[in-house]
Amino acid sequence: MAGNSFGHLFCITTFGESHGPAMGVVIDGCPAGLELSIEDIQIELDKRRPGTSHLTTTRQEKDKVEILSGVFEGKTLGTPIALVVRNEDQISKIYEPIKDLYRPGHADYTYDAKYGIRDFRGGGRASARETIARVAAGAVARKILASIGVKIVGYVIQIGKVKVTKIDESFIDQNVLCCPDKAVLKTMTNEIENARKDLDSVGGVVEVVARGVPAGLGEPVFNKLSADLAAALMSIPAVKGFEIGNGFEVAGKRGSENNDAWITKSGKVGTQTNRAGGIIGGISDGEDIVVRMALKPASSIAKNQKTIDKRGNKAEIQVLGRHDPCVCIRAVPIAEAMMALTLVDHYLLSRTNQL
Amino acid sequence: MAGNSFGHLFCITTFGESHGPAMGVVIDGCPAGLELSIEDIQIELDKRRPGTSHLTTTRQEKDKVEILSGVFEGKTLGTPIALVVRNEDQISKIYEPIKDLYRPGHADYTYDAKYGIRDFRGGGRASARETIARVAAGAVARKILASIGVKIVGYVIQIGKVKVTKIDESFIDQNVLCCPDKAVLKTMTNEIENARKDLDSVGGVVEVVARGVPAGLGEPVFNKLSADLAAALMSIPAVKGFEIGNGFEVAGKRGSENNDAWITKSGKVGTQTNRAGGIIGGISDGEDIVVRMALKPASSIAKNQKTIDKRGNKAEIQVLGRHDPCVCIRAVPIAEAMMALTLVDHYLLSRTNQL
Amino acid sequence: MAGNSFGHLFCITTFGESHGPAMGVVIDGCPAGLELSIEDIQIELDKRRPGTSHLTTTRQEKDKVEILSGVFEGKTLGTPIALVVRNEDQISKIYEPIKDLYRPGHADYTYDAKYGIRDFRGGGRASARETIARVAAGAVARKILASIGVKIVGYVIQIGKVKVTKIDESFIDQNVLCCPDKAVLKTMTNEIENARKDLDSVGGVVEVVARGVPAGLGEPVFNKLSADLAAALMSIPAVKGFEIGNGFEVAGKRGSENNDAWITKSGKVGTQTNRAGGIIGGISDGEDIVVRMALKPASSIAKNQKTIDKRGNKAEIQVLGRHDPCVCIRAVPIAEAMMALTLVDHYLLSRTNQL
Amino acid sequence: MAGNSFGHLFCITTFGESHGPAMGVVIDGCPAGLELSIEDIQIELDKRRPGTSHLTTTRQEKDKVEILSGVFEGKTLGTPIALVVRNEDQISKIYEPIKDLYRPGHADYTYDAKYGIRDFRGGGRASARETIARVAAGAVARKILASIGVKIVGYVIQIGKVKVTKIDESFIDQNVLCCPDKAVLKTMTNEIENARKDLDSVGGVVEVVARGVPAGLGEPVFNKLSADLAAALMSIPAVKGFEIGNGFEVAGKRGSENNDAWITKSGKVGTQTNRAGGIIGGISDGEDIVVRMALKPASSIAKNQKTIDKRGNKAEIQVLGRHDPCVCIRAVPIAEAMMALTLVDHYLLSRTNQL
Repeated sequence: MAGNSFGHLFCITTFGESHGPAMGVVIDGCPAGLELSIEDIQIELDKRRPGTSHLTTTRQEKDKVEILSGVFEGKTLGTPIALVVRNEDQISKIYEPIKDLYRPGHADYTYDAKYGIRDFRGGGRASARETIARVAAGAVARKILASIGVKIVGYVIQIGKVKVTKIDESFIDQNVLCCPDKAVLKTMTNEIENARKDLDSVGGVVEVVARGVPAGLGEPVFNKLSADLAAALMSIPAVKGFEIGNGFEVAGKRGSENNDAWITKSGKVGTQTNRAGGIIGGISDGEDIVVRMALKPASSIAKNQKTIDKRGNKAEIQVLGRHDPCVCIRAVPIAEAMMALTLVDHYLLSRTNQL
Repeated sequence: MAGNSFGHLFCITTFGESHGPAMGVVIDGCPAGLELSIEDIQIELDKRRPGTSHLTTTRQEKDKVEILSGVFEGKTLGTPIALVVRNEDQISKIYEPIKDLYRPGHADYTYDAKYGIRDFRGGGRASARETIARVAAGAVARKILASIGVKIVGYVIQIGKVKVTKIDESFIDQNVLCCPDKAVLKTMTNEIENARKDLDSVGGVVEVVARGVPAGLGEPVFNKLSADLAAALMSIPAVKGFEIGNGFEVAGKRGSENNDAWITKSGKVGTQTNRAGGIIGGISDGEDIVVRMALKPASSIAKNQKTIDKRGNKAEIQVLGRHDPCVCIRAVPIAEAMMALTLVDHYLLSRTNQL
Repeated sequence: MAGNSFGHLFCITTFGESHGPAMGVVIDGCPAGLELSIEDIQIELDKRRPGTSHLTTTRQEKDKVEILSGVFEGKTLGTPIALVVRNEDQISKIYEPIKDLYRPGHADYTYDAKYGIRDFRGGGRASARETIARVAAGAVARKILASIGVKIVGYVIQIGKVKVTKIDESFIDQNVLCCPDKAVLKTMTNEIENARKDLDSVGGVVEVVARGVPAGLGEPVFNKLSADLAAALMSIPAVKGFEIGNGFEVAGKRGSENNDAWITKSGKVGTQTNRAGGIIGGISDGEDIVVRMALKPASSIAKNQKTIDKRGNKAEIQVLGRHDPCVCIRAVPIAEAMMALTLVDHYLLSRTNQL
Repeated sequence: MAGNSFGHLFCITTFGESHGPAMGVVIDGCPAGLELSIEDIQIELDKRRPGTSHLTTTRQEKDKVEILSGVFEGKTLGTPIALVVRNEDQISKIYEPIKDLYRPGHADYTYDAKYGIRDFRGGGRASARETIARVAAGAVARKILASIGVKIVGYVIQIGKVKVTKIDESFIDQNVLCCPDKAVLKTMTNEIENARKDLDSVGGVVEVVARGVPAGLGEPVFNKLSADLAAALMSIPAVKGFEIGNGFEVAGKRGSENNDAWITKSGKVGTQTNRAGGIIGGISDGEDIVVRMALKPASSIAKNQKTIDKRGNKAEIQVLGRHDPCVCIRAVPIAEAMMALTLVDHYLLSRTNQL
């Protein structure tokens, strides 16, 4: 237990500082016999990769993954799968002038408080670049889930003040914002563009849906599927809120309005509505699992901000570098990955629930 | 790993079905030398206990705790502390008629799907009675936290449509609703009374604040303090949403509006505002930790509902029994307990962060 | 992680000091649907119970187990199974005079060094009475193993200077020593009687065999079946050595003498000999698993010994009380239990090795 | 939990197949602020490296380690430390002819039984080459231990029929056998030479001593220091037995012969003798920790052996390749590493034992 592992049976351990030699992950507990190629992983990394749009950062990260172990003749061996992505194209020197300053909203001070030492280049371990490892591991998880009919899709439902009004999944891949609503695409885009022009950033909300999840996943009372999903998504950089199903809205409802009626659906038990978001009593019920996470506007902004340095002296700071004006877009594949990692872990756990 | 343990170093394992012989918890990893009496624990259980107000259930639960191990001559030994509360005053026979029906919003079906068997009396393991064990263990955690100057306080900030407009902590203990705002107490009370009259229930939101938490708690990247707190609170029955600091509100903000400026406070590093809720980069920053959780209206309502039985036949159901019309009130000490358990665990973990 | 839990999926957490209110265990992760009665557990506890022979301690321990949770209508629910045995017939006052003395071979000093506090009555948590919880949990493990055809048998192969010359399993239950060799029973018995007369104790070796274990159990490279079995048996009080198969003897052998040839046995892969003790590369190979553990002579002897008190003053001590002159005999069901707990855990783990 | 992690707080996860791209380890939980250079690690790897003597394998492995994360400006960051060693100089084609044969004493069959797939080149994951990762991580553990005055030394005490008669630690580094007894060096060397000439291998025993270990390490009742050390050493390839202190010898002793008397040593509590090997009740007592492990003769021998192939057909096999005639010598740094990893983990754990 030291914070960089996730999962009980399908267990990943990630490593890497943003300006260190490499990012990576070891997946321990991946079942043997899964067909796995480097392309399966690269395709997911490419979704996360910046530089594909002017709406995300302009850093050019190649992010080519290498498989160091665990795969033989195109199949997983059941042994640990180590995946490494080299860090390239970092410009560390721009961090020199601010290495003693605490960037507002950043983990500079908290890392100093915790460890007494900090890699000031980029965000060090606190950089969102850390999530490369999650996406790489998530690609493996998704392949297993696909083999049992589970499909995961994520999208942006809010950027700044702009919220989607409908979910058209076919539209998600047709725009760089992962926006499922053509009607708001332009205003959403403006929201980001305006933030950038103002040397500022803007927050948002991402929703992730998992379809085809079998009933019975989740380990009450502490590793309820809802609890493990919450931990999974709340561990993503910048996330400040998590909901499942109707989420915070349920607070204002009556039980008779919020309960989902049990019905029979093509011979199986199901619910008429899905206000619960596919999880009841911490266990999946076979309906779509629907979660949302709120992301704060990126802390790194070029605008002038007041702060202090590590000796307590007042200072002003502009965080330069090539930062995302809106981290939501790139958070979509990350959230999908964390959902996949959680589900595959609970799927394996569920194999031992009955004699 | 089987779902009923929480914590890495201060690790609790809970057990018990609501109509079985007893509920209980084993605390493994409590440091030796803590002064601990049975009263320390009983006082917290009494806060959680129903029957103290007509606004909660009228069940009379004595909930007397017994210490089976780990304490000697008034001090903890460093060995496991086992706490047991016998179940009494249960009326199991009222569950006989509905034992094959799936109660809407309840975990009846999901337990059947997972385990192929279910204790239909009360909620079995899915009953909120399970939380006795959390509160008992939380009382021990709070004693440790008190010794390092950490204080935790929870309260209700929303019941149904009624939200508080200010937080007056001195008022919390003066009303059975744990409401911190005298101005809305009457309308909040009505919200619950009306739900009861309508044979219905109502949801709400609970906020918990921890003061005096040292900077440096939290284990990135997966056991960030935010992630572990999310899992802790999302594991409480009926919780559907979790926020930290400004939570979902941050989605609509600019970075320049949301970043907290670093300042010096009486010689220590602090922030001018606390939109982050005391956690930055998954690590406590020394400011108040502020979290919220949304609770759905209790699933058990006496109102008539449509459902099916375990064989898929349509049925109607009224869930009788003495159920809370609003679970929020009793959720306050539970949320405080989970906060305490998470913080004490991370406090112990933080002792190993530096050489 | 705090030392009192064992197992990854079938996970037990034990508690209790020998002169505290009770000993107990919580089993988390027992699959649902196992038929389980209180007799299933009591029968194993009775084997371990002292007072059945003058060759073990004369303490009269009733050791009646109570099931507090996890079982409903005769079957396991998949929820935690809590088992409790009350402590009775303890005479704590005899420990008053030696409460500040460090008994030679005992954990008095090491507990003081670790925790700064110690329950001096009996052995506190360091008492062999702690193993009641292991045997109770082991009884549940054995029922699961029986359902897949695994049988575990343990016996004494050495007491003091006396070693068995053959293994006749049918004889084990016919003598209170769990000795499998009628020819040495009398000399073994004398070995113990003589130690008792001399106010002394004597050591020994216990062997445990598991038959019918499927090939494929064990999780390399750190949770090899051999490593987890070693930890399991080495955690039993008084154990100082562990072997698997030919154990230390292999050191003196050539590879050509020690390798077991692979052959076909009734259509399955097997080995011609079983020098490996059923585990190769840390994974079971389908042959009998054979392990041994060496137990030191009990530390508690009535003979006069030199020691110091907690302030460092020289002292003499006779450890009175009703102690076993040879702990080996009662260690047999404990070793069987630990073997069962390890195997059932790895059996569950093995369900997730392949897609 | 999937078998490739070791340690509770100082937790390592290893990966790599012997003929795959690389071997490696991620260390999570290393305290921040430790001075660490690549030389600190390389020096330990070089001790383990084959090719330095004709008594070990003639493979030329460079085994150059690379640090991918967790170290910044010569100090540990508190974040995961990833270490990678590329595999080079493998000749995989020699395994083609035997890829369907089960090598006697090898894990070929058990891996097939477990995973349904196997990397037949070299030993795959079951290769002793896996231990590179342990030694690399152990080097970091040793640096921490050195900072608190703990020193670990291992040596060979038996090769085949030849046992040492005394321990002269100053002689260990003066011979390639890590033999502490000049008097038997020649006969020991012959034992290995003769095995090689006979196309055979020979077993042995390694002893490891840790000095300066503070009293109080070990987490009863399941993670006793003795139990975790047993698991640590029994997880090393080829190990079939484990002892602590006087080990199996204690079985033949009386309590009065085996108990170590408590005395005062330069103001601290100590024992007059150290039959217990530095651990009492599963907790270190401040004396030297002394453990031994028995290693079987290497399974890979060039001598002709009978076996079967994966289809059950009888076959003959000579395991060619450049194998160690005696694995004991190279096992010394591996055993030291596992001792170090276990001790540093328990040292960190012990920081939380008291308030």
